[in-house]
Amino acid sequence: MGIFTESEEKSNEKIKKRGCRVCVAGGGTIGLPVATLISNAGFQTVIFDTNKRRVESINKAQVVFEYSNLLPKLIKTKKLRATLDFKKAMMGSDILVVCVPTQITKEKEVDLSKLMELVNLLESGMEEGLLISIESTVPIGTCKKIGLSIEKKSGFRLGRDFGISHVPERYNPVLPREKQVRVGFEEKTGNRFTLHKIPRVVGASDKKSLALTVKFYSSFIKAKIVPVSSLEIAEAVKITENIFRDVNIALVNELSKIYSSLGLDTFEIINGASSKPFAFLPHFPSLGVGGECIPVVPWFLIRQAEKIGLEPKLLKIAREINDSMPSYVADLLEKALKANGREIAGSNIVVLGLAYKANSSDVRLSPSLSLIEIIKKMGGKVRICDPLVEKVNPSFGLTSLEKAFQEADAVIMAVDHEVFRKKINLKKIKPQLRTPVIIDCKNFFRKEEAELLGFTYKGVGKPD
Amino acid sequence: MGIFTESEEKSNEKIKKRGCRVCVAGGGTIGLPVATLISNAGFQTVIFDTNKRRVESINKAQVVFEYSNLLPKLIKTKKLRATLDFKKAMMGSDILVVCVPTQITKEKEVDLSKLMELVNLLESGMEEGLLISIESTVPIGTCKKIGLSIEKKSGFRLGRDFGISHVPERYNPVLPREKQVRVGFEEKTGNRFTLHKIPRVVGASDKKSLALTVKFYSSFIKAKIVPVSSLEIAEAVKITENIFRDVNIALVNELSKIYSSLGLDTFEIINGASSKPFAFLPHFPSLGVGGECIPVVPWFLIRQAEKIGLEPKLLKIAREINDSMPSYVADLLEKALKANGREIAGSNIVVLGLAYKANSSDVRLSPSLSLIEIIKKMGGKVRICDPLVEKVNPSFGLTSLEKAFQEADAVIMAVDHEVFRKKINLKKIKPQLRTPVIIDCKNFFRKEEAELLGFTYKGVGKPD
Repeated sequence: MGIFTESEEKSNEKIKKRGCRVCVAGGGTIGLPVATLISNAGFQTVIFDTNKRRVESINKAQVVFEYSNLLPKLIKTKKLRATLDFKKAMMGSDILVVCVPTQITKEKEVDLSKLMELVNLLESGMEEGLLISIESTVPIGTCKKIGLSIEKKSGFRLGRDFGISHVPERYNPVLPREKQVRVGFEEKTGNRFTLHKIPRVVGASDKKSLALTVKFYSSFIKAKIVPVSSLEIAEAVKITENIFRDVNIALVNELSKIYSSLGLDTFEIINGASSKPFAFLPHFPSLGVGGECIPVVPWFLIRQAEKIGLEPKLLKIAREINDSMPSYVADLLEKALKANGREIAGSNIVVLGLAYKANSSDVRLSPSLSLIEIIKKMGGKVRICDPLVEKVNPSFGLTSLEKAFQEADAVIMAVDHEVFRKKINLKKIKPQLRTPVIIDCKNFFRKEEAELLGFTYKGVGKPD
Repeated sequence: MGIFTESEEKSNEKIKKRGCRVCVAGGGTIGLPVATLISNAGFQTVIFDTNKRRVESINKAQVVFEYSNLLPKLIKTKKLRATLDFKKAMMGSDILVVCVPTQITKEKEVDLSKLMELVNLLESGMEEGLLISIESTVPIGTCKKIGLSIEKKSGFRLGRDFGISHVPERYNPVLPREKQVRVGFEEKTGNRFTLHKIPRVVGASDKKSLALTVKFYSSFIKAKIVPVSSLEIAEAVKITENIFRDVNIALVNELSKIYSSLGLDTFEIINGASSKPFAFLPHFPSLGVGGECIPVVPWFLIRQAEKIGLEPKLLKIAREINDSMPSYVADLLEKALKANGREIAGSNIVVLGLAYKANSSDVRLSPSLSLIEIIKKMGGKVRICDPLVEKVNPSFGLTSLEKAFQEADAVIMAVDHEVFRKKINLKKIKPQLRTPVIIDCKNFFRKEEAELLGFTYKGVGKPD
């Protein structure tokens, strides 16, 4: 009998004494740090993942992530392990934490296939008393649907025999800036918002699930756990957070195109506006947005709205603007090369940064990938440099910083990793280049300095 | 010889010793508090305004605003006075602070006529050495154009004989909540951001203007004065701040329509999302935006972008969404009345709140005005209640709260003034109504309570 069907007293005791077992489905960007925190708090924890290499490297404690330093001990003491076998992972589990990715197809249709595969597995052999905490971001109504589907297939009743809660992941996916691997559990780096310090929202199928989930998360998250009135509200909270980002980044991207045409520097404008102590939050223009949240989650709501006959114009325009940035940057590249008597076809183009975000090694839906595709289609020869991606995934075949600039015709600063600040010097790379062109998507170089050195400098958010 | 053409030492001394005279053009929402602060800091100050009634009431110290309490002494000691005569106002002035309104026409074209009238007056008799500080929000390039126009007409040279700076107004136009009139100069109310505590951005035509303006503003603004590199950057900063508001309010308004259709409460969702400690800033859905900034200033940039062949889609959609909210609310009203066997035509509709913002008496471009127009066009009989507007402008012919609800068919909560919280009680108004319909644009009433009392309750951002 799992925790959900035990008496309140007994289930509270089980959490307090770390007597319940936890299965975390998905050992990726979210699942692994969550599982690490849970097992580090004292719970016997098993990670279920379908990726063999991932499972092996977790079990060897060989993954680089925010809480890497905690992993060896947890693996060694068998507090935490990973497996490909769902049945084994679930054996004796009181709580299932779902951290599988939810995606969109190329046609921007919602793709919950990975989540549904998991639900299928679950339905075929779920035991009574399970508390299911879904962290994956999902369209509104999904958690309830999952509950009803399990009800149907398993014969258990939602809210009586098992419970569902939605605790949407909130994560600031940045590797520590100072050292690439976090050295200690508490404040050793500049990241104020590591996973265990970010407040969480919880919605649930019933009061008992809500109370249990709040207690459980409070045992490993050192921040406020905020209950909301339903699964759907929790789903909408996460979607709203991602849409807020997408729209505000789209806004500065749109503004930056106008300001550049008017000869103004958007970065200086945003910094000026940031001195307003209320009703403003700075966002900066860039190559666009990436990762598995911002370019994906808005589509969950867009498709849902369209189905009920609403036209979410603002959300769609925001998506369009952010998705258009790589092509805008390719235009800047074309103009800058033209000014030097070249075109993209046949030119050697260096792209600095493949990850979707500074100081991250995550390349999923990175706008750099779109930019590279565009340049290649136009006949450009692309060399990609990203020391962080290379470190985590050497198989990418990236070019090293040492070799990248030889005979290059343009350098595109796409992602401003800390490591680039230390290693890239305009004066030093200048003699290596064939054509002195800089395209700066991150306000990384100083325009005046670059131009003084003889570069043709163009940048997102910089005067045209 | 005015302050601008004096030696650095002498001009600094003049500011320090309050030896310079200041003219403030425009004695309205911005100009009057600015002039009050300047003269309260010790400068001899004259307000120039073309509105006779305004000039008279300032000179009688009979205006209700944030710093009302400072006015009587300043008027009595003749530190501050208002006049209709521009020449007299400017006589011996070292600094001109421009606070005249800038607007748009009904066709959403930029209308700077009031500013240009002032520039015309200025050109005909400006003396050497004037420092002109423009606080009015203007399209990018306007301040420079004004400078060049003055150069041409007056023969003075910009940057040599006179200076121009742009210090875009930043104002949180809320009357103190506890008492409608501020009782003291320092923290006596809940408003953390009274005018003298809001940081300011300064751009200027030249270094001297910049330095002088920073010194001058530092003498009466008790917050950071932030210099930026040009007049144009300062213009863009203010425009960006207003656009940020417009777009973010439009975003929640768009979201609220979807969430209402999905049966969810947008206010609960935004409150949940607000627990995210980074990358989120809460905005709430409403009847739309009003005042002379948010619905106006985005058009300055939209028109400018269009002129150079750019299509600012996001900015235009945001304007469209916010402008559409009154008609969305009229739809809610229609549905709620229909559920009670009535239609808008022939019904008595009570609109609570005419100001564009809570605890303000400012009705300029208030979305309530649009809503009232729509209801009237549909044949509804409108009664408007706004104790704050009535206090400041009794000639509006508003209905008192005591009489409003008699035989009414619907109550629309448009603006959530503090005073409404104290005086409106659903139980008490219910028996007065003919039809129990509540349309809530501000999450003011509790839906459950209203429905329990027998009301048909519909609201912006509330479950449909």
